[in-house]
Amino acid sequence: MALSRWGTDAEAKELNDDIRGLLRDVLGVTAESGAHFDPAAVSASPSRLAGSDLAALADIVGAGNVSIDDAQRLPRARGKSTPDLLSWRLRPAVDCPDAVVAPGNDDEVAALLEWCGREGVAVVPFGGGTSVVGGLMPDSGGLRAVLSLDLVRFDQLESIDPESGEAVLGAGLTGPRAEELLAEHGFSLGHFPQSFPYATIGGYAMTRSSGQSSAGYGRFDEMVRGLTVVTPVGVIDAGRAPASAAGPDLRQWLLGSEGAFGVCTRVRVRVHPVPETVRHEAFRFPDFAAGAAALRAVEQQGAGPTVIRLSDESETAINLATATEEIGKTSDDAGSGGCLCLCLFEGTADHAESRHAETRAVLLAHGATSLGAGPAESWEHGRFGAPVLRDSLLDNGALVETLETATDWSNIPALRDAVSQALTTSLEESGTPALVMCHISHVYPTGASLYFTVVAGQRGEDPIEQWYTAKRAASEAIVAAGGTITHHHAVGVDHRPYLADEVGEVGVRMLRAVKNAVDPHGVCNPGTLIP
Amino acid sequence: MALSRWGTDAEAKELNDDIRGLLRDVLGVTAESGAHFDPAAVSASPSRLAGSDLAALADIVGAGNVSIDDAQRLPRARGKSTPDLLSWRLRPAVDCPDAVVAPGNDDEVAALLEWCGREGVAVVPFGGGTSVVGGLMPDSGGLRAVLSLDLVRFDQLESIDPESGEAVLGAGLTGPRAEELLAEHGFSLGHFPQSFPYATIGGYAMTRSSGQSSAGYGRFDEMVRGLTVVTPVGVIDAGRAPASAAGPDLRQWLLGSEGAFGVCTRVRVRVHPVPETVRHEAFRFPDFAAGAAALRAVEQQGAGPTVIRLSDESETAINLATATEEIGKTSDDAGSGGCLCLCLFEGTADHAESRHAETRAVLLAHGATSLGAGPAESWEHGRFGAPVLRDSLLDNGALVETLETATDWSNIPALRDAVSQALTTSLEESGTPALVMCHISHVYPTGASLYFTVVAGQRGEDPIEQWYTAKRAASEAIVAAGGTITHHHAVGVDHRPYLADEVGEVGVRMLRAVKNAVDPHGVCNPGTLIP
Repeated sequence: MALSRWGTDAEAKELNDDIRGLLRDVLGVTAESGAHFDPAAVSASPSRLAGSDLAALADIVGAGNVSIDDAQRLPRARGKSTPDLLSWRLRPAVDCPDAVVAPGNDDEVAALLEWCGREGVAVVPFGGGTSVVGGLMPDSGGLRAVLSLDLVRFDQLESIDPESGEAVLGAGLTGPRAEELLAEHGFSLGHFPQSFPYATIGGYAMTRSSGQSSAGYGRFDEMVRGLTVVTPVGVIDAGRAPASAAGPDLRQWLLGSEGAFGVCTRVRVRVHPVPETVRHEAFRFPDFAAGAAALRAVEQQGAGPTVIRLSDESETAINLATATEEIGKTSDDAGSGGCLCLCLFEGTADHAESRHAETRAVLLAHGATSLGAGPAESWEHGRFGAPVLRDSLLDNGALVETLETATDWSNIPALRDAVSQALTTSLEESGTPALVMCHISHVYPTGASLYFTVVAGQRGEDPIEQWYTAKRAASEAIVAAGGTITHHHAVGVDHRPYLADEVGEVGVRMLRAVKNAVDPHGVCNPGTLIP
Repeated sequence: MALSRWGTDAEAKELNDDIRGLLRDVLGVTAESGAHFDPAAVSASPSRLAGSDLAALADIVGAGNVSIDDAQRLPRARGKSTPDLLSWRLRPAVDCPDAVVAPGNDDEVAALLEWCGREGVAVVPFGGGTSVVGGLMPDSGGLRAVLSLDLVRFDQLESIDPESGEAVLGAGLTGPRAEELLAEHGFSLGHFPQSFPYATIGGYAMTRSSGQSSAGYGRFDEMVRGLTVVTPVGVIDAGRAPASAAGPDLRQWLLGSEGAFGVCTRVRVRVHPVPETVRHEAFRFPDFAAGAAALRAVEQQGAGPTVIRLSDESETAINLATATEEIGKTSDDAGSGGCLCLCLFEGTADHAESRHAETRAVLLAHGATSLGAGPAESWEHGRFGAPVLRDSLLDNGALVETLETATDWSNIPALRDAVSQALTTSLEESGTPALVMCHISHVYPTGASLYFTVVAGQRGEDPIEQWYTAKRAASEAIVAAGGTITHHHAVGVDHRPYLADEVGEVGVRMLRAVKNAVDPHGVCNPGTLIP
């Protein structure tokens, strides 16, 4: 990925004239008005490590696996949130990790953590670099330096048990590479978050990632049968059996811990045979409330789609603008409006067919109109493309970002209204109209996620602060309205101020107790998670 | 329940002559040879609390909710494991909790814990009293006394959200009472462990209970959306949203904590509409390996039964002996042998029908023969009866107990053999043949549980120690063969020596850290869970 983009430079696309016209006329922004990236202006903070430090690190991981080159340190200094991408344009003097180290096995990770504890140096684990919540900020927590610990060498399918449907995957494997290795054995993980092209297995585990097929295969945390975390006081292998009543579930103490307790080096996951069949169907609902009620019925009845998503009226309108033909073709009411619902069904042919039939019956009974397979196929085809579109919008002066939460079904309307209102009001106060779109992409028997996409105009000297102001308003609205502060983007630096609201004072005390017990010198990702 | 029985005295049943003959001829035991219960021999340890202590407790919970009567203390001194039931017969001088207190709300629980911390008195929470792992042992952990904290007054359906399918249930509600209250609103929890008639909602949560419908509705820990635990340092309400990426899942730190971190007072659970339909079908497999492969395929494909169970050849033979007629009638090979598989399918009529059809097709493809609905209906009718039968067997000189574990599918045969062998060998060494039966009653995509029932003859002066010797052999075999030390009976006192094997040294360190953080004076159930 390019420093200031989600995608590569080669993926960068010009927006068409219609969209640029819209940005200019509605949001008052143009390619000229937006902040621009000047590679020549970027400077990395100098490494604070001495030659003796680097020699010690080289002794542990090998000289070829330690670097203080700016070209290595810069891309590991930030994640891929909109503030991150804007910061390359607006704040090109970049505080960087003082070195990048790439251990090759658990013993080397343990030795690194031991050295860090002795020397007072912090560690930020690095997988795919896709954090959108500041999880990569090189915060030394008051220590004298900070290392970026790159898991790139943990890149093996370590073992596979086809009978049990389990695989042990190195934490540094990217999603596509893991799928490739599993496919050689006829298996798939079925975890497809939007960060899929870059994000890693360890990152999925440490941030509680939710893939787009969560209805069928569960969130990533539900797929994890076991995981290895190297802490400063020893290695923990959590997860002995597929289910256990032997006390608290320590897997769930480690999942989502974002490197604050140690470094995740491998994950044992459930895998399933590459599906025989994938069936697609899209539907239109007259409004969001009707669609949400239908998704609720599907999930509570256990009808069994693999993917099910519902866009609100705004997001549907944008989708229509880019895919009118497919949707128009099969629609009875060739007008527009309403809310688009996309479904996929995977498995054996019989299994997929019966789930499709049951889901379809529930949706139709709740007022859906079928739009045929087309829109669902289009979505599947382009589903990892949104972040690349964000790059182009940022280049054209727009402020565009996403955020997500989740709540009980009965609280969905109130939470959606509260967050939309908070974002709209804050951005209006900054002098720009805001288009707030929302969809449900993850359903549970008792509730669902809400995923918001916001497009506004960059305003003022500091659009980063403009966004943070809007994000704070949204976060406070989430807390007040009973949502979770993050459904699948993790905590990182950005959500840390709200964690005490999420887990309470006793919860924070429990987190701190574990942190202190396994990381007595406070070297593990000190900037993240724990308030 | 009677002190020395699972069931009430009214439920006690004479065994028929055939079974008594079998016990005599094969196991060499009779009603005369077994240990007998003499209520007159029972004596309770005197309460170590002073009048001023009782006055202080009465100030907190009200005088009517504090008792030092033996009639109150004795039934809260032990659970319902076979060693517990035998101990009333063999060790009638009983160490008891020093008082029974029944707080009425969270504030009273908090005040009790505060008093306990100040006064150096321990607390053992009490729900239904059904622990089979020593979870109720009145261990003061070196403090000067121990209270039994009875949750009987937390007996309300506190709220229900029909749209989200959630209910808040008091921790002291028994299974039947919770179902009764939910049924008034058209809902059911769908959690039916064998302890259902007595066990409580709080107990299910604190021990990670697995009900017989786990294939359809999940284990209890999967149903829990949130829970309240009153700790000595404050109240924690864990579980803000149906899914969250806000760090480690603190629900999973509390579930299974068996009172070691505090007292669970209420649980927010997923509920579902009372099913429209229940369909039943039983099958016979030629052997256990074929049946296990079939259950694995059903679960990995996601076919969707609500209940699915497979008995091994021994257990099937015993079932046949008591239900020959039903099974014989519909069977093609009217001979016997093989392994019995029982299935239930619940939900809307369409849903149950499609799951039944898919499951049936998989089972038949794996060599099953249908036995019709009869055996599955019989099982459902009598499914809470086994512990009452245990009472009768104990009365007739048999040693009878159960234990359970779980592992990956590929390890099922090795684990089953290892545990069976360990039990058989140990009991043979004690001078008795042993009948070891096994079934799979909980299936997961990557593995399954194994539930063992053992019947042997009571031997020697101390059949309690005879059993503990066999249980130690089984536990060591489980650890060595890679199973979990407990799939749904929790840790308690009995499994505590094996917890370090289960979670490792770092895991134990994490558990202790949380324990010390939330229970600085060590008053919360000091004998349980944490090594």
